[in-house]
Amino acid sequence: MPLLVVGSVALDSVETPTQRRDNVLGGSATYFSYAASYFTSVRVVGVVGEDFPSEHTALLAGRGIDTEGLHVMPGGKTFRWTGKYLPNMNDRETLEVHLNVFEHFDPVLPDSYRRCRYLFLANGSPKVQMKVLNQVTKPALVVADTMDLWINIQRDDLMALLKRLDGIVLNDSEARLLTDDENLVRAGRAVQRMGPKFVVIKKGEHGAMFFSEEQTFVLPAYPTSQVVDPTGAGDSFAGGMMGHLASRDRVDAQTLKEALAYGVVVASFNVEDFSLERMKQIGKPEIDKRFAEYRQMLSF
Amino acid sequence: MPLLVVGSVALDSVETPTQRRDNVLGGSATYFSYAASYFTSVRVVGVVGEDFPSEHTALLAGRGIDTEGLHVMPGGKTFRWTGKYLPNMNDRETLEVHLNVFEHFDPVLPDSYRRCRYLFLANGSPKVQMKVLNQVTKPALVVADTMDLWINIQRDDLMALLKRLDGIVLNDSEARLLTDDENLVRAGRAVQRMGPKFVVIKKGEHGAMFFSEEQTFVLPAYPTSQVVDPTGAGDSFAGGMMGHLASRDRVDAQTLKEALAYGVVVASFNVEDFSLERMKQIGKPEIDKRFAEYRQMLSF
Repeated sequence: MPLLVVGSVALDSVETPTQRRDNVLGGSATYFSYAASYFTSVRVVGVVGEDFPSEHTALLAGRGIDTEGLHVMPGGKTFRWTGKYLPNMNDRETLEVHLNVFEHFDPVLPDSYRRCRYLFLANGSPKVQMKVLNQVTKPALVVADTMDLWINIQRDDLMALLKRLDGIVLNDSEARLLTDDENLVRAGRAVQRMGPKFVVIKKGEHGAMFFSEEQTFVLPAYPTSQVVDPTGAGDSFAGGMMGHLASRDRVDAQTLKEALAYGVVVASFNVEDFSLERMKQIGKPEIDKRFAEYRQMLSF
Repeated sequence: MPLLVVGSVALDSVETPTQRRDNVLGGSATYFSYAASYFTSVRVVGVVGEDFPSEHTALLAGRGIDTEGLHVMPGGKTFRWTGKYLPNMNDRETLEVHLNVFEHFDPVLPDSYRRCRYLFLANGSPKVQMKVLNQVTKPALVVADTMDLWINIQRDDLMALLKRLDGIVLNDSEARLLTDDENLVRAGRAVQRMGPKFVVIKKGEHGAMFFSEEQTFVLPAYPTSQVVDPTGAGDSFAGGMMGHLASRDRVDAQTLKEALAYGVVVASFNVEDFSLERMKQIGKPEIDKRFAEYRQMLSF
């Protein structure tokens, strides 16, 4: 089944304790769509400026990603983010954000996208996420990401959105902020009671937790010795997860667990280099091989 | 197979964000031996003062733990530790330490203990750990715990000990300190190259990692919504792990992974109340039931 993602496309400058890259391809919709493209056909909706290098669009298209919905704003500049990772490579500081064309992002879905049954609303204002959701005619599965900013400044909109979602993906500190509970098991269950059928809490290098009426589980991150740049790990995780679900066109308990495991595995590749550098080197066979190792690792 | 543990027996005062307990039973050998007692017969070597309540000794004996090696120092006072947990319930501050009789702990094993084939050297000075190891005649499996203090002030002794060990158990920050590497996968492998056949890195609420020549794996913590007091979680983990290995009298790859999983499960009970309160309520059937759930949780 085709999978639709709406989110940011950006040019990132990233500093780690040992290296630095400037103006590399980034953004939530970018990482998500690239990761998902190993599993299913992907349509991306986003906005960039005239400064956006055409080779980046070609890179996405090269993996079969439909970029009809990637709008180039005349005279605009692409969203830029600059960040720095702390020595633990798990925590980071945002040094600069220039929203540019993303500031007034008000996506209108191409007609051909509206009947997409699998939808991922990457991190963005809940108001905009809701407007996108309202343009999709008969979704089978709608999952959104969010962040601390929206929890703080658009909580009511987020609460309204949560009631319309099948799933929400958020990180550990956001789950704690949203529920005012430090214990992630209680926090995950509390978010689930806010509306979505399931909740995924991302814990960075520590993996992810899943909560639904039927099941609670935790999966660790795949242990990689090569953590070069964690940027986009969460979006790659979501892309692997949603990609697997869309490819199977099933959302039962077993498929959801497999989907999270695929998310973990795809994210583990993503962090092994800057931007999409590592992802560009792999195909589905590498993902499946690591998935099998990961499954074996957790089996006793 | 009987399992011998040498370590601290203490009276702890613990403050959490919502509760406080004073002078409750604690200590590495206490938590370890209680946890291991669900799996195999346990012999404990430690030292307490005359102030040590006899009901604590009776509690251990009540689970069949052999306390012949628990020496009561005439006129001495028991080791006391006071600590405070931060709101995340994973990090803590030590507020007070009174080593008392533990300061000059120089254990002499009862003759009947020297032929024990399974030995756990709970956290203590590597000099003392080595002296204990030298008293054991034909060990099949020797595993030690350590801490940042010894890495900082007795590194040479610790390095010498590592070459004599089958396994070392340490926490994430200690592995980073010992190897000067922030990446835990590389750190774990580096510790393994220092001598032991296997390395277990404990990550608190995030579970544990395992490294040997044959395998690398990560297991998440069992997700519990009830984290009341994490004190002793690491020692309970080690107790469950070593208890399972001793009970099977096998140390192959599969049994090691099961052993870590048992460690995770036992630790998850331990944190559900202060001191040994939760552990006192459970038996092996509860442990096996949660073990089965945990195995199912990680299966996909």
